[in-house]
Amino acid sequence: MRIDVHFTLPEVDSAALAESTTVVIDVLRATTTIVEALANGARGVYPTTSAGDAARLAASLGREDTLLCGEQKGLKVDGFDLGNSPAEFVEEIVAGKKLVMSTSNGTRALSLAAEAQRVLVCAFTNLGAVARAVASDEVLTVLCAGRADQFAVDDALCAGHLVNRIVEDGEGLCELNDAARAARALAKGLSPDRAFLDGTTAGRALAELGLADDLDLCGEVDRHDVVPVMLDQAITLSGAR
Amino acid sequence: MRIDVHFTLPEVDSAALAESTTVVIDVLRATTTIVEALANGARGVYPTTSAGDAARLAASLGREDTLLCGEQKGLKVDGFDLGNSPAEFVEEIVAGKKLVMSTSNGTRALSLAAEAQRVLVCAFTNLGAVARAVASDEVLTVLCAGRADQFAVDDALCAGHLVNRIVEDGEGLCELNDAARAARALAKGLSPDRAFLDGTTAGRALAELGLADDLDLCGEVDRHDVVPVMLDQAITLSGAR
Repeated sequence: MRIDVHFTLPEVDSAALAESTTVVIDVLRATTTIVEALANGARGVYPTTSAGDAARLAASLGREDTLLCGEQKGLKVDGFDLGNSPAEFVEEIVAGKKLVMSTSNGTRALSLAAEAQRVLVCAFTNLGAVARAVASDEVLTVLCAGRADQFAVDDALCAGHLVNRIVEDGEGLCELNDAARAARALAKGLSPDRAFLDGTTAGRALAELGLADDLDLCGEVDRHDVVPVMLDQAITLSGAR
Repeated sequence: MRIDVHFTLPEVDSAALAESTTVVIDVLRATTTIVEALANGARGVYPTTSAGDAARLAASLGREDTLLCGEQKGLKVDGFDLGNSPAEFVEEIVAGKKLVMSTSNGTRALSLAAEAQRVLVCAFTNLGAVARAVASDEVLTVLCAGRADQFAVDDALCAGHLVNRIVEDGEGLCELNDAARAARALAKGLSPDRAFLDGTTAGRALAELGLADDLDLCGEVDRHDVVPVMLDQAITLSGAR
């Protein structure tokens, strides 16, 4: 298996994704929220790259069973039903609903990944499920959403733990790019506990917004056994709308 | 002290460098070569971002005591005096000379760093000297040249060892960005031995060109006690032409 990790979106050649399974990671908080929503029964998540696009798509999907979700600068968008705190996405609120979601970094990463053969959504909360889902792939690309096109250590750590699971569980040699090697080394010494997440740039920004409690759920490794799959701009657990 | 590491050049806001001391790292091989040349008596190194610019600058500096150096796709440019293998830059060849140098990634990083208050050149070979030179700075930016705007694990490892030296030798707390934290974690488990450098993308590319022997010198930590300083496009040991 060949595994390429990319720590920032500008490092990705989207045309080169066509032959790969691509895993998108935005630990704080978009992919954690998507995993949470689908594990709690949401029918599908529709990522958009702007709040305006989200509102238009929600209108076209029909507002009665659609929720508008997402953040701008970390906070819920005015007029939206939900923000981007994973703990908001409980079964009572999201089961059976379509969620249209716009976030700062995660949905941009998903948009870029759309060129890939298969697109999976990963967070610490579904790490093992994703590792198993890609075990027999030949070419794997891991896209870290990062933070405004900058390196984000929380995403890199998640990528490293994912690669370690794949390499350690797998048979045969893996060919790793430089970032995959670095991510593995990072994951050897660090786990996503509250102390680690508190010290990240994204974690500090959430604390300033009064959202530090989000970090506990975001660091819960293997909380869910689900693999969200994106197909034709819709993310579901089955990969079909 | 605040320390910001950037793993790739597109992550750098060059305007934000104005208030900082900036350290440029391109382990394989530009900054290793610059350290080697100056430690061996070169009068100055003039980085340019293209082979054509290098030839024009060499002509204006006067060809009799100027050497044209650098690579394209790893190999010496046709008609140049030297390539980019640090071991070529011995005292007998470079002492007293001005070296005009064009490389793929390192000289681009130096060009970007030119906005900074003070620009230092770092490799494993002068790690301790650079760590001491920045010990009393308030804001430090570490630019990894990377590889064609992609993460390079050799540069990240060097950044991590540099940050570890600064943090461990320093007094008081350091404020680190996410990449600085990741680089430190990387450096805890890895040293730039031949096995490590052989496995990097840049190391493999050099091996394919028959230049794998360059890696031994590039991994020699603290081989020289010199700090190259760039001022007005010239890199010297004193910081003056």
